[in-house]
Amino acid sequence: MQFEESQSQHNDIYAVIDLGSNSFHMLMVKVVAGSVQVIGRVKRKVRLAAGLNDSLVLSKEAMTRGWECLALFAERLQDIPASNIRIVGTATLRLARNVKTFLTEAEQILGHKIEVISGEEEARIIYLGVAHTSNCEANRLVIDIGGASTEVVVGQGFQPLLLSSLNMGCVTYLERYFQNNELSESNFNAAIAAAELEIHKVADEYLAQGWQNAVGASGTVQALQEILVAQGKDEVITLSRLETILQQALACGHMDQLAIHGLAQERKQVFPSGLAILIALFRVLQIKGMTLSGGALREGVLYGMLSQLQHQDVRARTVQSMMVRYFIDQQQANRVADMAAMLAQQLDPQWNLQSFEGLSILRCGALLHELGLLIEYKNHHHHGAYIINHAELPGFTRAQQQLLMALVYNHRADLNKDILARQTMTSVLLAVRLTRILRLAVILSMRRRHEALPAVQVQAQAEGLHLKLPDGWLDHHPLMRAELEQEIAYQQQAGWQLMVH
Amino acid sequence: MQFEESQSQHNDIYAVIDLGSNSFHMLMVKVVAGSVQVIGRVKRKVRLAAGLNDSLVLSKEAMTRGWECLALFAERLQDIPASNIRIVGTATLRLARNVKTFLTEAEQILGHKIEVISGEEEARIIYLGVAHTSNCEANRLVIDIGGASTEVVVGQGFQPLLLSSLNMGCVTYLERYFQNNELSESNFNAAIAAAELEIHKVADEYLAQGWQNAVGASGTVQALQEILVAQGKDEVITLSRLETILQQALACGHMDQLAIHGLAQERKQVFPSGLAILIALFRVLQIKGMTLSGGALREGVLYGMLSQLQHQDVRARTVQSMMVRYFIDQQQANRVADMAAMLAQQLDPQWNLQSFEGLSILRCGALLHELGLLIEYKNHHHHGAYIINHAELPGFTRAQQQLLMALVYNHRADLNKDILARQTMTSVLLAVRLTRILRLAVILSMRRRHEALPAVQVQAQAEGLHLKLPDGWLDHHPLMRAELEQEIAYQQQAGWQLMVH
Repeated sequence: MQFEESQSQHNDIYAVIDLGSNSFHMLMVKVVAGSVQVIGRVKRKVRLAAGLNDSLVLSKEAMTRGWECLALFAERLQDIPASNIRIVGTATLRLARNVKTFLTEAEQILGHKIEVISGEEEARIIYLGVAHTSNCEANRLVIDIGGASTEVVVGQGFQPLLLSSLNMGCVTYLERYFQNNELSESNFNAAIAAAELEIHKVADEYLAQGWQNAVGASGTVQALQEILVAQGKDEVITLSRLETILQQALACGHMDQLAIHGLAQERKQVFPSGLAILIALFRVLQIKGMTLSGGALREGVLYGMLSQLQHQDVRARTVQSMMVRYFIDQQQANRVADMAAMLAQQLDPQWNLQSFEGLSILRCGALLHELGLLIEYKNHHHHGAYIINHAELPGFTRAQQQLLMALVYNHRADLNKDILARQTMTSVLLAVRLTRILRLAVILSMRRRHEALPAVQVQAQAEGLHLKLPDGWLDHHPLMRAELEQEIAYQQQAGWQLMVH
Repeated sequence: MQFEESQSQHNDIYAVIDLGSNSFHMLMVKVVAGSVQVIGRVKRKVRLAAGLNDSLVLSKEAMTRGWECLALFAERLQDIPASNIRIVGTATLRLARNVKTFLTEAEQILGHKIEVISGEEEARIIYLGVAHTSNCEANRLVIDIGGASTEVVVGQGFQPLLLSSLNMGCVTYLERYFQNNELSESNFNAAIAAAELEIHKVADEYLAQGWQNAVGASGTVQALQEILVAQGKDEVITLSRLETILQQALACGHMDQLAIHGLAQERKQVFPSGLAILIALFRVLQIKGMTLSGGALREGVLYGMLSQLQHQDVRARTVQSMMVRYFIDQQQANRVADMAAMLAQQLDPQWNLQSFEGLSILRCGALLHELGLLIEYKNHHHHGAYIINHAELPGFTRAQQQLLMALVYNHRADLNKDILARQTMTSVLLAVRLTRILRLAVILSMRRRHEALPAVQVQAQAEGLHLKLPDGWLDHHPLMRAELEQEIAYQQQAGWQLMVH
């Protein structure tokens, strides 16, 4: 009784443990205002796959590394209700013939059952983890390169259509193809060729199914994104960029010498093998471009437990939750968003705003522009940008998040053109256009009342903007006139012409 | 009907307008989670006092400047319910013999009554504005140097004991003693002597009453704080520091040449006259040191309307509201705060922690340390510090806020000693001691359960810390052991010894 009572205060905490072939992870979260808040993470590089020999027997040493790690996890786990915990094991545990020895001891340590999931189940859960954290209306290809297996899925919405778990991973390929630690053409070619062979087994049905977007969910893709950003590129991984990075790796010659600008120390060890597998996937599946997903296996397991968060539109769920968390005046947020949409519609013939996701990001920027008010009024545009820059925003890629941040940063007061130039989601020109629309929408909605919105017309001549208000309107609205005059000055300072009649 | 209905959505917005002798201000706020959130501010330098001639007649030009400004305010004001609005006029309007001409037109423009308050009422409201935004248990002296009057109050809690409104202000003294724009000894001496004469009229009763803390609430004090910080000093204004700054002003020779490191452009004009008045106050009232208040007249008017915020302990109200706004786990926050207090108590004999407000700031730091989790987990200590650094925190002086920020920044992971050294609230030594106590309290409370807290003993030998856990306890708590081992490494890296038995 006492025990149950004292546990009750943790009924809102959920834990997921993922016994991967490379690392073991424990993730602890709470649900706050309709979205997930991480409250703890523990990770250990157990490298279980390295302890699996050719006869698929897991060594005692690898098992012991695993058990020691689980003893750490167990200490936190005991405080969380059993129904809020799920523990999954993947490829190495699937393969190990002596898995029972490992599991018996492991379950004893954890006081909880471990599910060793099939490759297909792993692929299905990874897909759900991506679907719950990434925005995509069309068919998508999801790739997750694990330590000992690689999952490949095509699906739509929350529905996977094709699922495969391929027998290749960045730890097993490291052991097999880079044992001499040389970053040589022969090592890479052998790894790529082996991976291609594996992928060819399933390639036809994937190519027949097709997809519009490709998303990667693993450490390899994360590392590549970091490299691209550090090397001044946008976030999209392409085959030619992979091949450039392969050349950079070859130039290092040896594992100990591996140094690629933007590649973090802790990612180095399994980077070459992961790179080889990804190149093979790009080649065989003819992938045009890939972005990083916000989640994978752990998120799939987690959202599977959180029945209240089954929301089809991930981006809308994120924005709605942010509005609640940061006490945003939602009526005002929607008023500004509607005004921005109306201005954008009027400007679309000249400004061509439909051509990418900009209008969706503009709407999100309008809904979130007052985010920073919770911290303080004077620089609330900077505070809002800080929050967006650092928050996890399921439904936004990193580049989309950067554009959103740039819009919020620049929604009022002085303009910072560097931030608009640094985002890689779209051209500076289009980012500037969206910014100017948002700024005008904010000013025109300043009275925070629907009845007080002026009927405006806006036109563009190249980058010059003409804002027309009803005749005599400004004479009766001196504060709005003062704000618009100030805005003309701000835009002029940035080199943009705004005229108000 | 229609009109009332559409206004209803703004029932939670409050507005205060202050028709000061130097500037007119409009402040709009909402109440969010038990504290005030500013949603709009409009300020215009009307310099009404400059339009008052020796016969106390306000010029038409000055009135027109005022009316034009009020027309701006009126545009926002019409959307706010009348019962949520208060508009006050101060010294210049009190003095002007033709005030009625100004008020008739002004009230017509605003659609709302203006209260021209007496000097004593102004002093009373300023005192309440300070009491609602500053932390002070003992008697305090409050000084507010306005454009045409200076209010001097002694009080305790929300109770003013002595109230005066003196006939001297930074605009009137600028006109009177710096008309030739020279920053000369003769100009300063004349201004200081005149102010001293004014203060002597009331000095005796103030000196007889006495006080423990002195707080300044005006632009002059704000400017001086900014100068001290820019010149690498702590936040306390003293007579000798004022005299140093006076020398810096004299060295400039002329108003147009006025350049003191840390003095903002927009504060320059009325700075010399305000400085002269403050020096006179320090001399005659024998003020030892003064800090900046978080609020004054506008805040006094505002909190007078907000009956739900009449909270004696301003600092506690602020921290409680922050915990609600940022969805902090309050049980865990209190658990860490209690653990920190217990450790501090054990260390007090060697570490002398009672000597300043450090233990109160430590408790606040513990209550707020998870503030940044709302933004993101990995660097939540940095996010929490960002929020504290930028938020308005009634009940904390700027230096206290900086110490609080340093504690939250350093409550986990790598230590940043620069931030501890940059705060000016206390010595680096004491800031480090508080930081180390908070870090240990966080680790020892990591399971977020009261029943899981270990019984610890802690001792200090100089800066070496010995943490003793029950025999064998660590053997059964491998995660806590791992965390403490990591902590030993973090502290060692910072040059501090921590031993755990």
